[in-house]
Amino acid sequence: MKKVLDHGYISYINHWGSDESIIIGARMSTGKGFIGWGTTENPGDEKLLKYLWKNRHTSPFEQCGVSFEVQAPLMVFREWHRHRTQSYNEFSARYAQMPNLHYIPLLSRIKKQSETNKQATGNEELPQEVIVEFLNRLEKEQQMIYNNYQWALDQGIAKEVARINTPVSRYSRMVVSANLLNWLRFLGLRLAPNAQWEIRQYAEAIKLEMEKYFPRTLELFKEQPI
Amino acid sequence: MKKVLDHGYISYINHWGSDESIIIGARMSTGKGFIGWGTTENPGDEKLLKYLWKNRHTSPFEQCGVSFEVQAPLMVFREWHRHRTQSYNEFSARYAQMPNLHYIPLLSRIKKQSETNKQATGNEELPQEVIVEFLNRLEKEQQMIYNNYQWALDQGIAKEVARINTPVSRYSRMVVSANLLNWLRFLGLRLAPNAQWEIRQYAEAIKLEMEKYFPRTLELFKEQPI
Amino acid sequence: MKKVLDHGYISYINHWGSDESIIIGARMSTGKGFIGWGTTENPGDEKLLKYLWKNRHTSPFEQCGVSFEVQAPLMVFREWHRHRTQSYNEFSARYAQMPNLHYIPLLSRIKKQSETNKQATGNEELPQEVIVEFLNRLEKEQQMIYNNYQWALDQGIAKEVARINTPVSRYSRMVVSANLLNWLRFLGLRLAPNAQWEIRQYAEAIKLEMEKYFPRTLELFKEQPI
Amino acid sequence: MKKVLDHGYISYINHWGSDESIIIGARMSTGKGFIGWGTTENPGDEKLLKYLWKNRHTSPFEQCGVSFEVQAPLMVFREWHRHRTQSYNEFSARYAQMPNLHYIPLLSRIKKQSETNKQATGNEELPQEVIVEFLNRLEKEQQMIYNNYQWALDQGIAKEVARINTPVSRYSRMVVSANLLNWLRFLGLRLAPNAQWEIRQYAEAIKLEMEKYFPRTLELFKEQPI
Repeated sequence: MKKVLDHGYISYINHWGSDESIIIGARMSTGKGFIGWGTTENPGDEKLLKYLWKNRHTSPFEQCGVSFEVQAPLMVFREWHRHRTQSYNEFSARYAQMPNLHYIPLLSRIKKQSETNKQATGNEELPQEVIVEFLNRLEKEQQMIYNNYQWALDQGIAKEVARINTPVSRYSRMVVSANLLNWLRFLGLRLAPNAQWEIRQYAEAIKLEMEKYFPRTLELFKEQPI
Repeated sequence: MKKVLDHGYISYINHWGSDESIIIGARMSTGKGFIGWGTTENPGDEKLLKYLWKNRHTSPFEQCGVSFEVQAPLMVFREWHRHRTQSYNEFSARYAQMPNLHYIPLLSRIKKQSETNKQATGNEELPQEVIVEFLNRLEKEQQMIYNNYQWALDQGIAKEVARINTPVSRYSRMVVSANLLNWLRFLGLRLAPNAQWEIRQYAEAIKLEMEKYFPRTLELFKEQPI
Repeated sequence: MKKVLDHGYISYINHWGSDESIIIGARMSTGKGFIGWGTTENPGDEKLLKYLWKNRHTSPFEQCGVSFEVQAPLMVFREWHRHRTQSYNEFSARYAQMPNLHYIPLLSRIKKQSETNKQATGNEELPQEVIVEFLNRLEKEQQMIYNNYQWALDQGIAKEVARINTPVSRYSRMVVSANLLNWLRFLGLRLAPNAQWEIRQYAEAIKLEMEKYFPRTLELFKEQPI
Repeated sequence: MKKVLDHGYISYINHWGSDESIIIGARMSTGKGFIGWGTTENPGDEKLLKYLWKNRHTSPFEQCGVSFEVQAPLMVFREWHRHRTQSYNEFSARYAQMPNLHYIPLLSRIKKQSETNKQATGNEELPQEVIVEFLNRLEKEQQMIYNNYQWALDQGIAKEVARINTPVSRYSRMVVSANLLNWLRFLGLRLAPNAQWEIRQYAEAIKLEMEKYFPRTLELFKEQPI
């Protein structure tokens, strides 16, 4: 398990295939299988893997994949679930009470709106008292909403209604499964400098996990993101 | 435009194809085209449409579709976006300030948790003062969060950070496009009695719109939901 | 490896997850994990698995899957590749010479067109000499085309052009990977009595393999196909 | 209808949306709609469309699309159907007799295998008598198989069995529907110099049709293919 943000994590469940599976998939076209990665002098399948990646022959990268358990704020899941080729099973606030677990950003995350990028945080600093005041308000709101949520549940109000004001800073949990190609597309978008910082932390954690299971492919991805 | 909930709506953008397109798609298999819907005595293509639907020959129902603009609370979009074969473009709180528009349920919506269905609202009534108190708390929370959001934006805090506590009762907007088969699957799940009441209101509004453009298919859907 | 038809096969490559993964996926909604399959008297998660399958809560069945290598006639691949949620890597006749391997049906497969089902073989027998003559013609055609193909390659004609008359009875090969839900949908369509007999043989072989890795789910599938 | 190859065609059925729909989709993120394409001096939404395409903000390009009827050899459909996000309804040889319509390449198409590209036709010429002999053999095979197919049908052999040796040069027909983004990805792959020449002719015809309905987007695509 790898911690992400203040209360989130990425936890590896399982994976299937390996860098070799990609070669086996690609070699189907000629009827040959995996030969060997080769050496620096005599590169063998290392060269084929590079060729596939460089020329965007993407289909063999669907022959392997990984599943994770993820805990993240709803605001991160809102972006994540736009990736339509992943398989999700998420905690349901209709079925069960959500835990009192919310995301509070670090002081260093609170900066001015970028002047050049309409969707991004810039580098310009804010007065310390504004930052502290902002974080205090966030925390107060989160606790007020959670207390009212608890009160509503205690009154017997249906869970699916009691949760109507859940803030997108609240943590939820899911299992998520995707093939390697889809994970690489996810990383391509969510590691990019214009991705929101919070989901980028999850993408970084996933990249580290993926390097364990598909080290050669991740090396190529880092050289040339998709 | 059709109003849904207190501040939401469904607004028709365009559609492509018609009930006839389904017949033309299906008749590709034999090389014949649309013959005519026929009469009650001599049913013609009416009979083929029924046969396709009844026997789940679903692919011809992908040859037509509809696009809508939708305004709905985030809690509804959270469920909606799990439909992975629809195309979405949603308002982004990273780019622009969200309007002060929130969902407050009707008094009659506030009931006890169902005792038999773990995910549903039951029919058992709550004391009037609990209902009123709950709605007051919801509204107070929404306004407190929005005021703090406005304050944070006024301080210059980046929009993507200022919105961290957005409640899932806040309204957002999107355009959404899907083929007829996918809309029917959406309706099948979201009109079902175990769907959450709020998304069911959107599904009802979409069903009414679809009846205008695909009346024969919707008739069959109502007789036998997918 | 499991033989199918005269020269085809299904060969298991790998799988991920298990019947337990489905429970873990489904329990995400309530935050609980796998409890135990239970006994006949005290059914435990066996009961949940049944509930999920019976009520078509399909998403947890995407949390596991299988990859196979398959050798089959092109006519089978033509039907197979309409399943759009599987991942394929097939032999390419643009890259390499296809082997001289063709499908010849068994004598018992050659029957009259069904009188009631426009797309199916019926049960009515044909004269023995017609059957034998038909099979002789098939074989003669296959060898004539292959000899001309070999001749064209020997003349130096490009492989992608030399193969232009390849009959759909010729065997090709692929690796194919899909999650369990998609395999079950494949089986639902391709084990059905109205599926073409040839692809049904592959579906039967796949079902047998799947029973090894997801025995409880396959049991439910056999009781109630999707 | 636009003719392609010797007996094929692309025939426009309908389309939905326009270049404007892309802007409307993209502007959802900020809550604004279409402003106007502007002029060379004052570019307006022309500039936004360019920005979206250049920076691969692809989702708004899913808000419009086109449907076609296509007649093409099976070898072309075999490649086409690997595009998994299109919707297909094809002629079925299980239901109906296929017409006696086959692809014979032009003399100029018959060249030597490329020495540098393992999957391609090169530029090196073949002796005229080899080319003529090859085309004669193709035609003779096609007619022999079709005559035997007709004979088998006349004997009453089931259609799904009588067609077992159908050559991939035989023409089939389909309706196909996809959103603009998917068509552009199709064009990106199938207009590329390493695509097989035959499917490239279809891609060229489709590109010409698409220019009628999405002229500004196709202009951008031609400048920078996806």
